[in-house]
Amino acid sequence: MPLPRTGPVRSEAARAAILAATAELFAERGYEHLTIEGVAQRAGVGKQTIYRWWRSKGALVAECLMEGRLFGDRLAVPDTGDVRADLEAWLRTVLTLVDAERGLVLSLLGAAAEHAEVAERLDASLTFSASIADRLEAGTGTTANLRPGVAARLADALIGAVVLRALSRQPSADDDAAAMLDALLGPATR
Amino acid sequence: MPLPRTGPVRSEAARAAILAATAELFAERGYEHLTIEGVAQRAGVGKQTIYRWWRSKGALVAECLMEGRLFGDRLAVPDTGDVRADLEAWLRTVLTLVDAERGLVLSLLGAAAEHAEVAERLDASLTFSASIADRLEAGTGTTANLRPGVAARLADALIGAVVLRALSRQPSADDDAAAMLDALLGPATR
Repeated sequence: MPLPRTGPVRSEAARAAILAATAELFAERGYEHLTIEGVAQRAGVGKQTIYRWWRSKGALVAECLMEGRLFGDRLAVPDTGDVRADLEAWLRTVLTLVDAERGLVLSLLGAAAEHAEVAERLDASLTFSASIADRLEAGTGTTANLRPGVAARLADALIGAVVLRALSRQPSADDDAAAMLDALLGPATR
Repeated sequence: MPLPRTGPVRSEAARAAILAATAELFAERGYEHLTIEGVAQRAGVGKQTIYRWWRSKGALVAECLMEGRLFGDRLAVPDTGDVRADLEAWLRTVLTLVDAERGLVLSLLGAAAEHAEVAERLDASLTFSASIADRLEAGTGTTANLRPGVAARLADALIGAVVLRALSRQPSADDDAAAMLDALLGPATR
């Protein structure tokens, strides 16, 4: 369906087409081989239209991430009632993704370091801090170091350790998720 | 003293002059206002000479950091025998620096995200991970969550939390260092 020629409808349609094209190309080629030019072509818009809203590939992909278009709900923290097991499952998924899409993760970090707006958008979109802190809060008392009032700090430390791992370019070992959680949360108390 | 005109002596002298000029200009103007052009002028070399060894301002400043030219030993972890107090003092210094030199810290993070060599150099130079892990190891048993085998993971989590703070652009509160350590290490046991 051709895009309408003018006005807010065109604008909204173009924006949706660009985000859809980005998600498609990301799935087909991965982050490294995604280009603004390729997105423009697939979406049927000019490159300038993309740059009007997003200043870089990192910012565009960050917005796709925010809308859940890249990984769906794979990055959501599961909730089976077992906080420790849920966080370990989430952390395994995230570490696997950091290994498999290192280019994407590092580009997003680079974009977040350069542009405050990208950092804010990532933070608002991934909501890792908030959802992990919530789950930790819910698990207060279930492990030795999960005491009242520490959830938000532990959530930041956990996410920070993942960021540091990405920067190190070191692949994760199988037991990393469990070992990280053991170090931060302490042994289970029940 | 004019630089010798050719050969390895000139090369070494130019390199030293560039690093010294970078450190001086950093102290005088801060990271934001430091330029490769200004460094070249102060060091008496051409910009191309700088770009031959360092591909960006971030890489050049990272090397100055590595050689201890920017902050001297202010970033070293103190060793008074009281691990918790030492780490709190170190963390306060680092958080203050992240607030005061946010531009520098974010540029270094951006450079580390973009170039593996910068990340490696920063890691090798700051040796935060190693020295904090060492101090934590030495303090095993002094706090509830400082158990055998967790030091390296806790060190990464602590440094990661600082990185996340820098990315958030949120200034630190007075009690942040103490609260972070309390969350990670648990209450003192002796």
